[in-house]
Amino acid sequence: VTFPYALSGSALRIRPSPIRELFAMTRRPGMISFAGGWPDPAIFPVAEFAEGVEVLSRLGPEVLQYGATEGYAPLVEELCRWLTPRLGRTPAPAELVVTTGSQQVVDLLGRVLIDPGDVVVVEAPTYPGALHTLRNLGARFAVVPCDGGGMPVDRLAEVLERCRSEQGRPPKLIYTIVNFANPSGACLAADRRPAVLDLARRHGVPVLEDDPYGELRFRGEALPSLYSLAGGEGVVWAGSFSKVLAPGVRVAWAVGEAEIIRSVVLVKQGVDLCTSVVSQALTAEYCRRGHLERHLGKIRAHYAAKAAAMSAALAATLPPGRAAWQDPDGGFFFWLRLPECDSRVLFRRAVERGVAFLPGAAFFPDPAETVGAPVDGAPFARLCFTFATPDEIVEGCRRLAAALS
Amino acid sequence: VTFPYALSGSALRIRPSPIRELFAMTRRPGMISFAGGWPDPAIFPVAEFAEGVEVLSRLGPEVLQYGATEGYAPLVEELCRWLTPRLGRTPAPAELVVTTGSQQVVDLLGRVLIDPGDVVVVEAPTYPGALHTLRNLGARFAVVPCDGGGMPVDRLAEVLERCRSEQGRPPKLIYTIVNFANPSGACLAADRRPAVLDLARRHGVPVLEDDPYGELRFRGEALPSLYSLAGGEGVVWAGSFSKVLAPGVRVAWAVGEAEIIRSVVLVKQGVDLCTSVVSQALTAEYCRRGHLERHLGKIRAHYAAKAAAMSAALAATLPPGRAAWQDPDGGFFFWLRLPECDSRVLFRRAVERGVAFLPGAAFFPDPAETVGAPVDGAPFARLCFTFATPDEIVEGCRRLAAALS
Repeated sequence: VTFPYALSGSALRIRPSPIRELFAMTRRPGMISFAGGWPDPAIFPVAEFAEGVEVLSRLGPEVLQYGATEGYAPLVEELCRWLTPRLGRTPAPAELVVTTGSQQVVDLLGRVLIDPGDVVVVEAPTYPGALHTLRNLGARFAVVPCDGGGMPVDRLAEVLERCRSEQGRPPKLIYTIVNFANPSGACLAADRRPAVLDLARRHGVPVLEDDPYGELRFRGEALPSLYSLAGGEGVVWAGSFSKVLAPGVRVAWAVGEAEIIRSVVLVKQGVDLCTSVVSQALTAEYCRRGHLERHLGKIRAHYAAKAAAMSAALAATLPPGRAAWQDPDGGFFFWLRLPECDSRVLFRRAVERGVAFLPGAAFFPDPAETVGAPVDGAPFARLCFTFATPDEIVEGCRRLAAALS
Repeated sequence: VTFPYALSGSALRIRPSPIRELFAMTRRPGMISFAGGWPDPAIFPVAEFAEGVEVLSRLGPEVLQYGATEGYAPLVEELCRWLTPRLGRTPAPAELVVTTGSQQVVDLLGRVLIDPGDVVVVEAPTYPGALHTLRNLGARFAVVPCDGGGMPVDRLAEVLERCRSEQGRPPKLIYTIVNFANPSGACLAADRRPAVLDLARRHGVPVLEDDPYGELRFRGEALPSLYSLAGGEGVVWAGSFSKVLAPGVRVAWAVGEAEIIRSVVLVKQGVDLCTSVVSQALTAEYCRRGHLERHLGKIRAHYAAKAAAMSAALAATLPPGRAAWQDPDGGFFFWLRLPECDSRVLFRRAVERGVAFLPGAAFFPDPAETVGAPVDGAPFARLCFTFATPDEIVEGCRRLAAALS
């Protein structure tokens, strides 16, 4: 540095993502990657999305101008229509805000609620991007070790009680991915949902229900959202076009009580004024033309086939007793438990053999930022099945099995 | 509120913008508005921008996917080419980040540098959006009362000395709009530029040079940026497509030392992962096709005519001795000094007569958040000349004169 920058606390808390380094190691010819959690570009609805470009000519002066911080009205209208059956009610305009990806929901709501040192309850494992954002805000983490049905209610109760008694006040937020969670693939069990809400309410802790994968269910019945079970009270529900349409539009949304959405909007005003109106208008056109519902059917089948290929390949190749997992009913991920294995060591061996995944450590807060007992990520691995072809999935699992043996 | 939200300090610091209330008052039929600081939608290059949509089909899978946090490579390439003659050097990839509007540069750099209570030096008057963003981060403000040549060097020196002696350390940042500032329309005088830099360097204070209007010069010679005078050291230079192309794309950028840009990128990663790739790709196409240079010539002439209309109308109608101003050489604004006038009272009278502007108070930090002597915004008014037609400008100035009499 040629200039004396005195960095802020938030900059000093930032750690470069270890995942980036891992990704750099996976960029080799012939590598089969289960590492990235990105949607399959082969299934992006390129032609259908491009159909909507006439809006740029038709409404040019409006689409190219600054937009409302709350969201571009035609998109808000489409969203309200789409959300009504899903939420069991139509959100009022004051209860919804369009955001620049749902990553921004975590950041904005975090800025509304979190002061440095505050505690956020997260699932263990959870999405590293949310940990990164909340860490930047100075949050500490209380972790709820999860099973195949998401957060066990008794463990959540313990964590909330412990925070209350040790910190003298409840945590500031519960962050949860209730459907096909990143990385576990688990859904919060139906009978746990009202119980989780009840605990949150009794302790006075708002819930951020992050739901980017809920529409990607290829088996079983959809479960009611925490938001709808709560009748909209105490829950901010975040949805996104990233997994169901395309992440490149950077369009997502949050629904919640008018008061909290108002605070989110005021923070957003100082953050980016509004989400790209061009992106919002093209996304609204895509929805208005009825493409979204059709596309959902297509991607569910597409990803179901890949998940089935991975399930069969893992069962056929992994040495018995060396790995355990639960087949996901939707989403993007398999989460392997690898007893007596350090997945960072396995990662290096696997990359040598031409297959990549993400070691478990990335999905847990560090012990130093964890309130209460941390969870060790070493015996876990996340495999994303969306990117590779079914043939590559079979070959990748074979290579992984060889690395594990 | 139906739920006990414990808001964070940053949410508690947020004040709803008083400007929004003022705008609500201006929405009446027949109102001529000099209030909003928005570009004229009549001059948006709708057809030229829409030409680029073929990129959505041609590069669909890439444009619809997640992009690099640093920026979409083809846009970064266009920007580097465009910036080279303007900066006197080609920024290295590690020295540039694409942002979701330049509002985001203020927020991200603020998060890298500012802890609650830290002092930021701002011009008086300055852009309310920057005050809002920095206030959300807990900044306090030391103000440099400006004249027609921007920050007087001796006043800046005083402010820096005073901060040092009273706070025991230098301010964390100098925020300045060096060209056709919002709201003053002033340019930092050529001979002050090296002196401002020299002061910043001697006190060890980084500079955020916000330059959304620099290309909109319709008279005189372009002045060298602080960034280029500093050889890139200690200055983050922010530019934007909002005023030269269209704000609805939400595409801007920051250039600075690799170390500080790296911190900005790490914060941005947790904020929105990346700026809309769709917006970036369409903007890159617009540049690649050579439209930007041609369009700049067109909007300079367009805005020059409006500025000339406002200059003539103000001179012809305002009662002598009741208002003083300096004709801007570019940008969007006239800044009136109205001795012995409270511009909030004038605002109400003017709106009754069918013309709107923004009272000066919005452009100064509150006394409570000001370190050292605050400046009273009452005797000032900002008139934006971009939105109204030349005929409306003449009639609007007539109405304003009547309100002032």
